[in-house]
Amino acid sequence: MSKRFVSELVAGSAIDEVFLLAERSMGHKKDGNPFLNVTLSDRTGQVKGVVWDQVARIAGAAAEGDFVHVRAQAGEYRGNLQLVVKDMVRVPADQVNAGDFLAVTTRDVAKMIDRLREMTDRMQTPHLRALFTAFWSDDTFVAAYTRAPAAKHMHHAYIGGLLEHTLSMAVLSEMIAGHYSGVDRDLLLAGVILHDVGKVRELEYVNRIDYTDEGRLLSHIIIGLSMLDEKLKQVPDFPETQAQLLKHMVVSHHGSREFGSPEPPKTIEAVLLNYIDEMDSRVNSIREFVAKDTSDGSWTPYHRLLERHFFKGPIQNESSGDG
Amino acid sequence: MSKRFVSELVAGSAIDEVFLLAERSMGHKKDGNPFLNVTLSDRTGQVKGVVWDQVARIAGAAAEGDFVHVRAQAGEYRGNLQLVVKDMVRVPADQVNAGDFLAVTTRDVAKMIDRLREMTDRMQTPHLRALFTAFWSDDTFVAAYTRAPAAKHMHHAYIGGLLEHTLSMAVLSEMIAGHYSGVDRDLLLAGVILHDVGKVRELEYVNRIDYTDEGRLLSHIIIGLSMLDEKLKQVPDFPETQAQLLKHMVVSHHGSREFGSPEPPKTIEAVLLNYIDEMDSRVNSIREFVAKDTSDGSWTPYHRLLERHFFKGPIQNESSGDG
Amino acid sequence: MSKRFVSELVAGSAIDEVFLLAERSMGHKKDGNPFLNVTLSDRTGQVKGVVWDQVARIAGAAAEGDFVHVRAQAGEYRGNLQLVVKDMVRVPADQVNAGDFLAVTTRDVAKMIDRLREMTDRMQTPHLRALFTAFWSDDTFVAAYTRAPAAKHMHHAYIGGLLEHTLSMAVLSEMIAGHYSGVDRDLLLAGVILHDVGKVRELEYVNRIDYTDEGRLLSHIIIGLSMLDEKLKQVPDFPETQAQLLKHMVVSHHGSREFGSPEPPKTIEAVLLNYIDEMDSRVNSIREFVAKDTSDGSWTPYHRLLERHFFKGPIQNESSGDG
Amino acid sequence: MSKRFVSELVAGSAIDEVFLLAERSMGHKKDGNPFLNVTLSDRTGQVKGVVWDQVARIAGAAAEGDFVHVRAQAGEYRGNLQLVVKDMVRVPADQVNAGDFLAVTTRDVAKMIDRLREMTDRMQTPHLRALFTAFWSDDTFVAAYTRAPAAKHMHHAYIGGLLEHTLSMAVLSEMIAGHYSGVDRDLLLAGVILHDVGKVRELEYVNRIDYTDEGRLLSHIIIGLSMLDEKLKQVPDFPETQAQLLKHMVVSHHGSREFGSPEPPKTIEAVLLNYIDEMDSRVNSIREFVAKDTSDGSWTPYHRLLERHFFKGPIQNESSGDG
Amino acid sequence: MSKRFVSELVAGSAIDEVFLLAERSMGHKKDGNPFLNVTLSDRTGQVKGVVWDQVARIAGAAAEGDFVHVRAQAGEYRGNLQLVVKDMVRVPADQVNAGDFLAVTTRDVAKMIDRLREMTDRMQTPHLRALFTAFWSDDTFVAAYTRAPAAKHMHHAYIGGLLEHTLSMAVLSEMIAGHYSGVDRDLLLAGVILHDVGKVRELEYVNRIDYTDEGRLLSHIIIGLSMLDEKLKQVPDFPETQAQLLKHMVVSHHGSREFGSPEPPKTIEAVLLNYIDEMDSRVNSIREFVAKDTSDGSWTPYHRLLERHFFKGPIQNESSGDG
Amino acid sequence: MSKRFVSELVAGSAIDEVFLLAERSMGHKKDGNPFLNVTLSDRTGQVKGVVWDQVARIAGAAAEGDFVHVRAQAGEYRGNLQLVVKDMVRVPADQVNAGDFLAVTTRDVAKMIDRLREMTDRMQTPHLRALFTAFWSDDTFVAAYTRAPAAKHMHHAYIGGLLEHTLSMAVLSEMIAGHYSGVDRDLLLAGVILHDVGKVRELEYVNRIDYTDEGRLLSHIIIGLSMLDEKLKQVPDFPETQAQLLKHMVVSHHGSREFGSPEPPKTIEAVLLNYIDEMDSRVNSIREFVAKDTSDGSWTPYHRLLERHFFKGPIQNESSGDG
Repeated sequence: MSKRFVSELVAGSAIDEVFLLAERSMGHKKDGNPFLNVTLSDRTGQVKGVVWDQVARIAGAAAEGDFVHVRAQAGEYRGNLQLVVKDMVRVPADQVNAGDFLAVTTRDVAKMIDRLREMTDRMQTPHLRALFTAFWSDDTFVAAYTRAPAAKHMHHAYIGGLLEHTLSMAVLSEMIAGHYSGVDRDLLLAGVILHDVGKVRELEYVNRIDYTDEGRLLSHIIIGLSMLDEKLKQVPDFPETQAQLLKHMVVSHHGSREFGSPEPPKTIEAVLLNYIDEMDSRVNSIREFVAKDTSDGSWTPYHRLLERHFFKGPIQNESSGDG
Repeated sequence: MSKRFVSELVAGSAIDEVFLLAERSMGHKKDGNPFLNVTLSDRTGQVKGVVWDQVARIAGAAAEGDFVHVRAQAGEYRGNLQLVVKDMVRVPADQVNAGDFLAVTTRDVAKMIDRLREMTDRMQTPHLRALFTAFWSDDTFVAAYTRAPAAKHMHHAYIGGLLEHTLSMAVLSEMIAGHYSGVDRDLLLAGVILHDVGKVRELEYVNRIDYTDEGRLLSHIIIGLSMLDEKLKQVPDFPETQAQLLKHMVVSHHGSREFGSPEPPKTIEAVLLNYIDEMDSRVNSIREFVAKDTSDGSWTPYHRLLERHFFKGPIQNESSGDG
Repeated sequence: MSKRFVSELVAGSAIDEVFLLAERSMGHKKDGNPFLNVTLSDRTGQVKGVVWDQVARIAGAAAEGDFVHVRAQAGEYRGNLQLVVKDMVRVPADQVNAGDFLAVTTRDVAKMIDRLREMTDRMQTPHLRALFTAFWSDDTFVAAYTRAPAAKHMHHAYIGGLLEHTLSMAVLSEMIAGHYSGVDRDLLLAGVILHDVGKVRELEYVNRIDYTDEGRLLSHIIIGLSMLDEKLKQVPDFPETQAQLLKHMVVSHHGSREFGSPEPPKTIEAVLLNYIDEMDSRVNSIREFVAKDTSDGSWTPYHRLLERHFFKGPIQNESSGDG
Repeated sequence: MSKRFVSELVAGSAIDEVFLLAERSMGHKKDGNPFLNVTLSDRTGQVKGVVWDQVARIAGAAAEGDFVHVRAQAGEYRGNLQLVVKDMVRVPADQVNAGDFLAVTTRDVAKMIDRLREMTDRMQTPHLRALFTAFWSDDTFVAAYTRAPAAKHMHHAYIGGLLEHTLSMAVLSEMIAGHYSGVDRDLLLAGVILHDVGKVRELEYVNRIDYTDEGRLLSHIIIGLSMLDEKLKQVPDFPETQAQLLKHMVVSHHGSREFGSPEPPKTIEAVLLNYIDEMDSRVNSIREFVAKDTSDGSWTPYHRLLERHFFKGPIQNESSGDG
Repeated sequence: MSKRFVSELVAGSAIDEVFLLAERSMGHKKDGNPFLNVTLSDRTGQVKGVVWDQVARIAGAAAEGDFVHVRAQAGEYRGNLQLVVKDMVRVPADQVNAGDFLAVTTRDVAKMIDRLREMTDRMQTPHLRALFTAFWSDDTFVAAYTRAPAAKHMHHAYIGGLLEHTLSMAVLSEMIAGHYSGVDRDLLLAGVILHDVGKVRELEYVNRIDYTDEGRLLSHIIIGLSMLDEKLKQVPDFPETQAQLLKHMVVSHHGSREFGSPEPPKTIEAVLLNYIDEMDSRVNSIREFVAKDTSDGSWTPYHRLLERHFFKGPIQNESSGDG
Repeated sequence: MSKRFVSELVAGSAIDEVFLLAERSMGHKKDGNPFLNVTLSDRTGQVKGVVWDQVARIAGAAAEGDFVHVRAQAGEYRGNLQLVVKDMVRVPADQVNAGDFLAVTTRDVAKMIDRLREMTDRMQTPHLRALFTAFWSDDTFVAAYTRAPAAKHMHHAYIGGLLEHTLSMAVLSEMIAGHYSGVDRDLLLAGVILHDVGKVRELEYVNRIDYTDEGRLLSHIIIGLSMLDEKLKQVPDFPETQAQLLKHMVVSHHGSREFGSPEPPKTIEAVLLNYIDEMDSRVNSIREFVAKDTSDGSWTPYHRLLERHFFKGPIQNESSGDG
């Protein structure tokens, strides 16, 4: 039987389904007895629930981030759907269909990573080639790099999204490096591939996409630099200035302090990386926003972060007229 | 029988009323069958509705922006009123009372436009007089100019609002041009009358006030300049610099780039136009905000855009005290 | 019987309880008859209510800011709890338990004010000592000063909060004045004690914490300066420049125009006052935010004003695992 | 003999003239002996000078702000004109022509103040009329109010400028109060006359226009409120709310925190005051900027604060052409 | 004999050379007689001069913007080079070497415009092809379009710079339109070619690069839209929505209001145009900045507008050491 | 013989002195021959110079950053002092008096570092104590840490300034950690000592204070994290979360993105670190600014970065009056 998603739940029905336990907090009733508030989610959204009975047993059964099999009755509370949870037991991750909980890239991950490797194999600069050999031969890294999303929301927010975003940028960077004379093609490409490498630890993406503690405390720029530092040590005699220029691309790729880069881009390659990153993220983000909109007007709803409506094309007026 | 307005609907009642079909989008149920989400409105607000049965027939019956006769049952869904729509048929615009759907100025439109014409007739500058002859003798333009609102929200957001706002500014501009020596009275007045002329195409205001595609893509400044360009061509030998100074007033009337003017005011007349526009819009906007507030405290609710409460006067304390 | 707080109300129950009448506004039904909208509150939150019958009598029974004994039926309207009020009568303030309506400092007020007085008694500067004698011997002032909260929201938002905040700053100011040579200890301490003195009139805090008319029209900086002016006149021969330096500390204590100070700090003492104030307010505000959060993750919810989550410490994972 | 102004000095000439001693600071030569740096000014500008000999005697002869008779030789130092001062003696202020040092309004001060008094005499509100009686019968105040400039730079920066600016605003305020219904004409006029009253102490304008210590520490808004407080106490039974509304106009007349007002305008009268003030200041400031420009192009030089060039009108091309 | 450039003039020498008369203003000596201040320029910079004798005759001989043959003596005044001008006569523009006064692109203009035409000939959209036929067959337009600079300062600030910038963007736009599916290649290319078309009238570039009156009053966005409007009228049945989308690209190409676009980009094509324009302008501007720097450190001087130093590469240490 | 400092040079004298060669760039005369521009400096300022003869030999003699013995003639060029350099030879750094070129802390460096070590020895947290053992036993690090300035300009911009600033903050942090309950004293102190540790590589301070290539490309936050990473690896079993919290303090110590921190402070300790850093930097920076001002008015000159004058105290009027 196919899963019943959060977006399909209606008040009045009985629920017997697996969800992710996204949040959990304890409350106390007037009589002093505890109850448990839970937030349950899958890839279509989230719903609140409450546990009134057998609170201690159920609270001990699962932690935030676990999958849970829930039996409940759906009702409404203050205008929102609310599940009164009768029972909730932990389900091992290998018994759920991960695709029900996390969106995944539609592209072929193996082909994408192969294409990136080919590009780094073709580099003219020996120490950069050696650096990528160090990255690609680290299986733990490659497993994470090919699985990580590029963001929690906004753009490429799905399993494999980081790789998809990076490859798109890599292809653009080769075109653009060819267009302007005097651009160090290998350095630009290296910066592109490494700019968001810290996202593999900034985010968690096993059962859901969210920030890790390390991600919130340090940000992916800082984490990525630490990862790069480690790999640089594995390449004998990596030239000091080249290492600094490569790190500079990671440091400055958000373009300005206001957007989280401690230093702005100070080389042509860093300047180009910043534009290519912004362009590719923006294009993907607008497209996903437009794709999600099913209204039949010419315009999307208002996009809060980008502060505008986007134009979807002239209306096809289906009304049959007065007659 | 008088119309039942959106603001008067209550859950549990049967609905048989005409509304505007403001938005419409298709969804799909779990079994793959389609349903239709609609937003219905009149001048008191809007309400969501859903069509479960005969979706294809009903969806084909009307387009966004049409008036529709709706038969429905009012219920609640996730804390909001929701209509379950049984039937919905298009109603020709000439069969509805437009006043139920759009607010209208309380001033006499004919007198207002006459007063503006008198002012332009008294201009000393022949080419400006000729320019306004071109505008006033364009019946399509006059029909739109006397009907357009000055905005979708915020100030003078009703039929005839553009004219009311413009006339108020014109009267102020004559006072102020008389107060400061060296101000070109005719140029200032011309700028006042033309500054928002693009609103007649930026907005639609047949059944409701909303932005047009052209309005969202180009803005009323750009549209107004194009309209002015066209009329300028009808005046033989309009002096080039005068044309540029007049266009400059339209270009700069928002005062700065931040507020949408590509250039800031660079002549005394353009500077004055900007202040007169801001003052008249702000005064109208605050008054309407205060008028709408029916609470009995000294202060209005918080005004989100202007970021403050406004003072309505000291409280008349009606409490009878402890005795 | 203990009070039933707003946070404990549930739809479907009958209510017979005392609340504060926070807001009140009149509406009209379709048939032209009036009804009354009310907002009722206590220290746990607020709830909307409506009076359908005997509107005139009930409306005459109490004003905004009064305590009222309410008999009502709790239901839901558009997804929120709503009380249908049957009756509402005014209750004299001396018959309610003030602590049910306003949070109070957990510190000993008498000890706190004594400690501040000791500090001003130890001042070396005769005219400053004389100034504080004038303040402390004004019983009306002291009563208000020891009772006022430091803010409506954000930090020290409870009875006695102003004193608690001020004393904490005073202790810090003595440490810091001792750390840097060349700081006028007495001037800094005087500035600390007086910087927020206008809050005793900016806010009302009898039945609830809210802004007064004077507070919204003038701000506590302006009110505090006026209070200081008055007391300065009671000290014979207070040196003119010293008076200006002391007022400057009040004027500039928000640090910049952007935060409401007409002038930025221009003396070392004013610079220090600004940092001590910001640090103490921020620390208190974060702690209260963290204390209120009962979820079991490592992070607080998002803090809208400070635009971040705060870290509460690593999760203690209670889940028993797969085994 | 007419005075030789700073703008007319040339290197190589001997100087024997009276200037204002604007700034003064001591330096030390390599051999340990002191020398004196001075800045001398009149209404056309300022020039640096240095005293090498008899430093102690000359330094003791005058303080900053004094008029001084200077005997010197004009030379150049690092590309700027520099006077090597042989002698410098203090000149009592009553022996210099004040007009050489400070620009003065071209309007008739007595007529201007009379016109303002007439306006306040016509007020309908008894307590406001009484308040202005208190102000106008304070001779010290009137003497300062009719002499003060409105600013150090930017607009109305000359003796009598405050009065000129205030009267222009008062006339505008009567027009505008008549244009919009529901505006309290007397309150608006009172706000206009008092909004900048603190400038009489914020600035000094005996020998030159500069900020006073009090002005820099407190700002004219704060000083003006203190002056208003004092006069309000002289009017028996001045209604409390009216006093707060009047003070609110002073507090908020800069329009927003960013421009130095601790609270933004929250009444129609305060909103109008802010626009009238901005409009009159801006018009005056642009006109003076245009008037000072003697170049023969169509545009003024770049105005740094307003960030634009202003248009002076099309060029009259005087070139005789190729023919 | 080769021209002696402004950058080569030294104090003490006699000057007999042609310059551009960039600015001119009249002054008066103490004795009431007039003198003339002039600013003379060529492509290497500008120098001030003064005419003491025969002022009326010389002032009548040339206007701002004329070339002038100058005989003068070079001296210094207040630390800057100053020419004392003995005589100055107008020189017809066809007698000077334009290249001495204006920098010119190093690329082949004919080839660049041919390449753009080829691109528009290959367009699939008939009405866009027709639109460009209208542009390319307007000889006056083509002459200006191939000659105009892209800016006064900052990037491509030389004769032919607009074409060079546009062609570079056109090539990039074809690559990028090919990279992302669903991009309207012809619309993007048309937007690229037309986005800065208003610069042909915003700037003058006959003898020097400067803003025209129209440019300062209206900005190149507004001028370009007016030019586009005119050409659109020459294409029969140009689809209305397509015209608005094309104009939208011109309107929005600066990306946000803050940078002078009344509306932000609301289609994928407009979003891409904005990034391509920013990237190409920035790359050109950095390269010219780096190219101009002749210091031998690793870094350029501080770039005021971009607020950073740029890295030129590691220093080649030429010092021979201690030995 | 004592050194003749840049601030003491006068036009017309012969120079025979050692300076730092701060900048160097090549130019070409009209005849095609090269000349050399140099900038020479010591701790009192810098002066431009030019080499006309024997350019190749002299250019080969020294690189930027070297000390040079210069023989020259001082003159003026375009209003500034300029040296015409006859000869310039490199001087080994050990032959100059470093104090002539770089300002040095007035505090005892050995005592300061000892005091810091005592503080870390008293830490209760074993892994933090171990971490500092790793830092203090690294002699290269300690040598740099005790010598580095805290900034190029602004505050503690002298040899030993970083240590002086850090120790002052450490003392404050102990007071403040004692004042607020629940603050992790050891974590706060560790954050204080390490927050600016990257400055030892961000800046060079051998012959002058300037940014290094690494400093400009990466910023001291990034460099410091890399240094911390390295030392953390030397402490066995340093708890992962503790490491992240410590790094978070370095990452967030500038308080917000706007000031260069990729993440804002998210723990009480990080919040306190930010305030203590700002307060100590600001106090030092204002004091140095006031100390440098020798004018005899009540106010310092305008401080461009802090955008205000600072008050130095009331004027002691030395003028003897009229009498």
